Amino acid sequence: MSETTSKAVVLCSGGIDSTTVMAIAVAEGYDIYSLSFRYGQRHEVELGAARRVSKVFKVVRHLILDISLGTIGGSALTGGMDVPKGRDAHQLDQEIPPTYVPARNTIFLSYGLAWAEVLGAADIFIGANAVDYSGYPDCRPEYIAAYEAMANLATKASVEGQCTMRIHTPLIDLTKADIIRKGVALGVDYSLTHSCYDPDPDGRACGGCDSCLLRRKGFVEAGVPDPTLYAGGAP
Amino acid sequence: MSETTSKAVVLCSGGIDSTTVMAIAVAEGYDIYSLSFRYGQRHEVELGAARRVSKVFKVVRHLILDISLGTIGGSALTGGMDVPKGRDAHQLDQEIPPTYVPARNTIFLSYGLAWAEVLGAADIFIGANAVDYSGYPDCRPEYIAAYEAMANLATKASVEGQCTMRIHTPLIDLTKADIIRKGVALGVDYSLTHSCYDPDPDGRACGGCDSCLLRRKGFVEAGVPDPTLYAGGAP
Repeated sequence: MSETTSKAVVLCSGGIDSTTVMAIAVAEGYDIYSLSFRYGQRHEVELGAARRVSKVFKVVRHLILDISLGTIGGSALTGGMDVPKGRDAHQLDQEIPPTYVPARNTIFLSYGLAWAEVLGAADIFIGANAVDYSGYPDCRPEYIAAYEAMANLATKASVEGQCTMRIHTPLIDLTKADIIRKGVALGVDYSLTHSCYDPDPDGRACGGCDSCLLRRKGFVEAGVPDPTLYAGGAP
Repeated sequence: MSETTSKAVVLCSGGIDSTTVMAIAVAEGYDIYSLSFRYGQRHEVELGAARRVSKVFKVVRHLILDISLGTIGGSALTGGMDVPKGRDAHQLDQEIPPTYVPARNTIFLSYGLAWAEVLGAADIFIGANAVDYSGYPDCRPEYIAAYEAMANLATKASVEGQCTMRIHTPLIDLTKADIIRKGVALGVDYSLTHSCYDPDPDGRACGGCDSCLLRRKGFVEAGVPDPTLYAGGAP
């Protein structure tokens, strides 16, 4: 790599969005430091996908942090509530579902900020998306802008007037189909990725949770064959 | 308690600042939910102090979260660097020391925000202090204001237009001596608290780290007897 290469921290869940974001960051010439979280989610399948994706993109380092969101509670993704299945398009658009994890992106970005500061990186990439975002507040552009403003006052570098932190959200205004088309154009192999909130013990997708429904709809609308392995066979 | 009592999340390190903040929140009539972190610090003495303080103030719940800042590195407080000793007043004022933990308050506040959201609380108290703050960027008023603005876009309640998150920093413009005077007026027993970055195995303070020096100076300037147990006897 040339000496002008910059370091970027990429939040990596192993899903379609963060994997596409990583492909974009690589295409833009960044050296990638991928960051994943064991946060009390119901399963470890997504961390396996995060490892596969990080390996394929030859990241400089992949860090998996153990953090205890589960202790705080308040989400179907960290136990104590059922993951809803088979919700219709109206419900997907209108309601904040129980899979919302309180302040998750805020916590994830804050670890990204800490690592960026240690690495001397000024760029953090996150697959936040305001279109097919399941109604999560911390995926809205105004939230990301406020986070960036805060980040630029939070660090040692900000006191010393050195660097300006940038929160990159290249997917913020794309539909899932747009995201998949973009990834395919960049050579992403989506069979590496995992989206389902409630996979079976072999890691196969349930096909009915919000995340499966949005993923499936994305492949159909993009006209791209869906490489997902479903527990019940192809939908 | 009356039905009008509100819940508040209080970040609690077991030190002078967060203990005084807790006394203030109690005096203001909040039901207290105290939040501490096992974040890879060199010792557990401060968590013992956080437990003692939370018990004395009869908090509704004291949550200690295991989070892995140590994995990220970059600070003398989480290993890999020496804690500086015997720095003079000029150094304490001018330099960001190696005890600075990257993005620590950002991460702590983000967990506070998550817990507040789960509890239905709109108030978070933190002992951030811009006077004797050892030069930490994330103790400045402009940082706290930016964090609050972000927090008000980050949560489910913000989408639903329900509550406004407030980050309370009642110590922001006080000297350590002012803080101690305020705490004494509220009946705080500072012998419960711990400040030293590098205590001996019995939990006694080193007397030489920045935190000990600021604490000692505070008691002297406040004209309050220093209840601290020092490893080498009274300074």
